[in-house]
Amino acid sequence: MAKEVTKRQENYSQWYNDLVVKADLADNSAVRGCMVIKPYGYAIWEKMRDQLDKMFKATGHVNAYFPLFIPKSFLSREASHVEGFAKECAVVTHYRLKNSPDGKGIVVDEDARLEEELIVRPTSETIIWNTYKNWIQSYRDLPILINQWANVVRWEMRTRLFLRTAEFLWQEGHTAHATEAEAIAETELIINLYAEFAEKYMAMPVFKGIKTASERFAGAVETYCIEAMMQDGKALQSGTSHFLGQNFAKAFDVKFATKEGSLEYVWASSWGVSTRLMGALIMAHSDDNGLVLPPRLAPIQVVIVPIFQKPEQLALLTEKIIPLKKELEAKGLTVKYDDRDTLKPGFKFAEHELKGIPVRIAMGPRDMENATVEIARRDTLEKKIYPINQAVETVVALMTEIQDNIYQKALDFREANTYTTDSYTEFKDILDKGGFVMAHWDGTTQTEERIKEETKATIRCIPFDAPKEDGECILTGNASKQRVVFAKAY
Amino acid sequence: MAKEVTKRQENYSQWYNDLVVKADLADNSAVRGCMVIKPYGYAIWEKMRDQLDKMFKATGHVNAYFPLFIPKSFLSREASHVEGFAKECAVVTHYRLKNSPDGKGIVVDEDARLEEELIVRPTSETIIWNTYKNWIQSYRDLPILINQWANVVRWEMRTRLFLRTAEFLWQEGHTAHATEAEAIAETELIINLYAEFAEKYMAMPVFKGIKTASERFAGAVETYCIEAMMQDGKALQSGTSHFLGQNFAKAFDVKFATKEGSLEYVWASSWGVSTRLMGALIMAHSDDNGLVLPPRLAPIQVVIVPIFQKPEQLALLTEKIIPLKKELEAKGLTVKYDDRDTLKPGFKFAEHELKGIPVRIAMGPRDMENATVEIARRDTLEKKIYPINQAVETVVALMTEIQDNIYQKALDFREANTYTTDSYTEFKDILDKGGFVMAHWDGTTQTEERIKEETKATIRCIPFDAPKEDGECILTGNASKQRVVFAKAY
Repeated sequence: MAKEVTKRQENYSQWYNDLVVKADLADNSAVRGCMVIKPYGYAIWEKMRDQLDKMFKATGHVNAYFPLFIPKSFLSREASHVEGFAKECAVVTHYRLKNSPDGKGIVVDEDARLEEELIVRPTSETIIWNTYKNWIQSYRDLPILINQWANVVRWEMRTRLFLRTAEFLWQEGHTAHATEAEAIAETELIINLYAEFAEKYMAMPVFKGIKTASERFAGAVETYCIEAMMQDGKALQSGTSHFLGQNFAKAFDVKFATKEGSLEYVWASSWGVSTRLMGALIMAHSDDNGLVLPPRLAPIQVVIVPIFQKPEQLALLTEKIIPLKKELEAKGLTVKYDDRDTLKPGFKFAEHELKGIPVRIAMGPRDMENATVEIARRDTLEKKIYPINQAVETVVALMTEIQDNIYQKALDFREANTYTTDSYTEFKDILDKGGFVMAHWDGTTQTEERIKEETKATIRCIPFDAPKEDGECILTGNASKQRVVFAKAY
Repeated sequence: MAKEVTKRQENYSQWYNDLVVKADLADNSAVRGCMVIKPYGYAIWEKMRDQLDKMFKATGHVNAYFPLFIPKSFLSREASHVEGFAKECAVVTHYRLKNSPDGKGIVVDEDARLEEELIVRPTSETIIWNTYKNWIQSYRDLPILINQWANVVRWEMRTRLFLRTAEFLWQEGHTAHATEAEAIAETELIINLYAEFAEKYMAMPVFKGIKTASERFAGAVETYCIEAMMQDGKALQSGTSHFLGQNFAKAFDVKFATKEGSLEYVWASSWGVSTRLMGALIMAHSDDNGLVLPPRLAPIQVVIVPIFQKPEQLALLTEKIIPLKKELEAKGLTVKYDDRDTLKPGFKFAEHELKGIPVRIAMGPRDMENATVEIARRDTLEKKIYPINQAVETVVALMTEIQDNIYQKALDFREANTYTTDSYTEFKDILDKGGFVMAHWDGTTQTEERIKEETKATIRCIPFDAPKEDGECILTGNASKQRVVFAKAY
């Protein structure tokens, strides 16, 4: 049997960790809080990255690369930014090591102290806006629509693979505009792009909305977000897009000459998704047998397993399987032929299930006689015998079917676990067992704080598309115009 | 006119810097020695990266990601590695900042000192072999063929955009094998892959060979390299592939059970190319008008410029140009239609030349009447009128022709500037004016050192394919079996 995975019911958190480690996605490293992304996990991330990159470029964005290090003083320039990001971070203070005087190993060379400490970027607004200052003089230089794929570091005390790590990989978009309206339109464009990516590629339904002041990005005027429900009913913030107003332009003195000749501060947005999406992807769909990957992001979409006792049988099966593999590949599918002769089929099946390969084709001597194959789908675990000449069309159709099915399943789950209530008692009960609650809120940070203290739940977002509806705050009874989404969150 | 570039004859080094900055490839940043790679420069790097990535995958390699930080003690594990890499590096000593007691800005929180300092990776052998220790138990776990795309930091005192920067982007392959022969075969496979990439894609001929002991990677048994000649006759090391023997396996105690049941240390290779290749690409082909890019790596391969006085003319030209653009795109070409109405054609031409776009198509009112276009190639600056219905085939053919031509030009240049001599006087003269010298060397580090002191030239490599030939060392007159390549180098 393949490696055992803890069941969700037993210990959800352990189940998650088991999947990540046993399906060879990632592992902890020797450096506290930093992970190693293993080849299979990285292959999924590459699929996500390539698709997002395509979507960014299709909407006029270009990639660039900015320094890993940020001078300490830059972080202080934007008042709320420093509060949010300057606290837990990796600080470079020296630029040289030397042999230890006692001859044992190496020590920091105290003569090589930096005049100003450098911070390993926790996010790049400051270094980028300091650069944009040199790039922007006139309205003709705008808009700037730049994205960066990079690693960032936030010194988290409690880390979990993919969900919260000291170092993580991400993309960060940083755009500069001549008008407020344009910058807001960009912020919206991107949150919609993220939602489309989550739903179409990750098969993960999301709520789109606005963050409350207390959950806003440090330095933003408004933060838009997408929020997904995990199988334990908790929320996972999966992407954010920030309208930064003129905050960073003012902090770094970035002005442009308008068409009319006046000098104005530049408007900005920034936005990002990270390897955290890997955690979301895993938790949204997987089951007690292992990963369930949406076909559009699966590094291997189809695996073919020959069932044989003797080498001669394998040779005969291979003769049939190779053309089938080629036909599937000609349809654009990624196919693996698992002809390892040291493992039993049952072991292989369990391993392919653990790794979430969407479709498995098995072929044995009896299939040879009957010109059939067995096709199993990972999402429902159903298997069926098909004539071999129907295999290609069946598998191609399954790709769409599985993609749609796991999206629908996640959507049904979210709907079944999203509640509307006006009773604070019920509100607390729901949050205890897990799920989202649509409830009225009076719009104050104090109320939000008290609810958080009493329930550990936060306002995930004020949804864009929730109907305007007069009501009374779930805690204070004060007037409210709209329900917001409460949930416990990762 | 577009931005003026210093002429090569006047000041080669300033010419290079002008190109990098004025063609919008990269810029210095606020952080000493760290560069900003601008969108146009990054687009070229993306083309290189994607092609290399394809070649790595086609030869069985997979990508993964390892931590940015390396515990200080790891660097001391491999004796020669620490000498090479532990000296000039970025040292993280603290993980928190706090508000300054005087209320001005932020300071390092002395209470948040790391127990062990972390080094920002200058290269990842140590952290990776520490990880491989957990991944490798038996011969069944081998080979491991992993590549990583990452940023690394080496605290260089004198930096130059792309050629030598404190932070740079690169790929580093780290492979683990059961036998010495396999690890050596991998080291060779990769140096051949790099040479193929340099020649076929960068259009840059290279010498392949072995480094002498003094130029070897710190921790390697043997370093293979590719060396290219720049237009000033200096060499640029463009890629290295290292046979590491069992050095890192021993340092990190990585053993495997062989098929026969004994325990043996694992064999290793590592290899990398970096954004330094951008410097090589620029210097190999460009001229006093700007960049000359090989079509296979040009982000924009064809630019179309309409020549017009009045908006009505532009509208008519656009009607003809859009279908042409689509036809070219259907051939797989990347085409830009430069219809900006605020700039004169001459200005645009100069800009496209500066940016090295391989082919320019211009179309004006007279072309409309005659059903012709003017096609100009960047490498030779030739222009010719073609019937518009021959434009697509002409441009498609030019892509290959230009690629081949700039390769041939670089090869001719290298051959014209590679000398064979047995006279030390002539040897010094050649190195003074610039060029490679094939000369005999007695195989000792002392001789190499003395030649370096006297001429500033180093042995770039002992070429793989140089004929065996008895001779006398250029400096000492001692016996030698083969000529080696001497040159001044970047």
